[in-house]
Amino acid sequence: MPFLRPISNRYFEDYVEGDVHSFGTIGVGADEIVAFAKQFDPQTFHTDPEAAKRSPFGGLIASGWHTAGLMTRLFMDHYLSKVASLGSPGGDELRWAKPVRPGDILSLRVTVLKAVPSKSKPDRGAVTSFVEVINQDSEVVMTFKVVNIIAKRPPARSQET
Amino acid sequence: MPFLRPISNRYFEDYVEGDVHSFGTIGVGADEIVAFAKQFDPQTFHTDPEAAKRSPFGGLIASGWHTAGLMTRLFMDHYLSKVASLGSPGGDELRWAKPVRPGDILSLRVTVLKAVPSKSKPDRGAVTSFVEVINQDSEVVMTFKVVNIIAKRPPARSQET
Repeated sequence: MPFLRPISNRYFEDYVEGDVHSFGTIGVGADEIVAFAKQFDPQTFHTDPEAAKRSPFGGLIASGWHTAGLMTRLFMDHYLSKVASLGSPGGDELRWAKPVRPGDILSLRVTVLKAVPSKSKPDRGAVTSFVEVINQDSEVVMTFKVVNIIAKRPPARSQET
Repeated sequence: MPFLRPISNRYFEDYVEGDVHSFGTIGVGADEIVAFAKQFDPQTFHTDPEAAKRSPFGGLIASGWHTAGLMTRLFMDHYLSKVASLGSPGGDELRWAKPVRPGDILSLRVTVLKAVPSKSKPDRGAVTSFVEVINQDSEVVMTFKVVNIIAKRPPARSQET
């Protein structure tokens, strides 16, 4: 796996186009799935285990937005800089490829698609990452291409590793 | 505003290309913003009001995924059928256009972009909706194009209104 500085010392320059990084894991249980869905996505196949059995999914599944939250937690804990993140304008091609079910254990594979220095703001750049959420059976359950604005390494610290 | 049957009697046929629907509202407070972010998106401008003041955003802002959750809650309470939703394969062009801050009141504007009957499964179709999340100052804070698979109205019930 390609070298990456710790997230407390990771800057725009550390995101190298073509690099593929893997991280994880995070689990998800039925109670969490139901609690999230009751707050944000109250469809019965997310909130009611019995009704979910009669749904097209054959049982309780996590809201896709819950899966996005779990993806984000792994992304923040392992990939995105803790010191240089300047926010995200959004992303593209969000796909919920397979259901996430109670007991699933998710991990992350992230490919750096693009790392483009800003033309208007020389202290930062935009990193586009292809994020894949993978379950314990090596199935890709969700993908997303996200853009993050990330500060460049400050000149005075350029020799640190 | 175009007519829409209640969500307990809304099917694929009720989503008419070009129709624009508005719904809302939902509020969001600082405690909720911090709680969501601590679970899913622990960046300091989402979790720490004091540190957030020194961030590029000048104060606490909601995780974009929290905004997506609030969007989804309005979408489920008002727009998506409660009886005919068969899940979503995903969406495109997710944009976080403006920060969401404590005390904001959000509403939804949804445009039916496409409603395409399935070729392989005659009992359903795919509805593509352009979803805009709008704050109390009429600013668009988030947009997303989402695809939902929705069952057609069962023939025996076709005369119900």
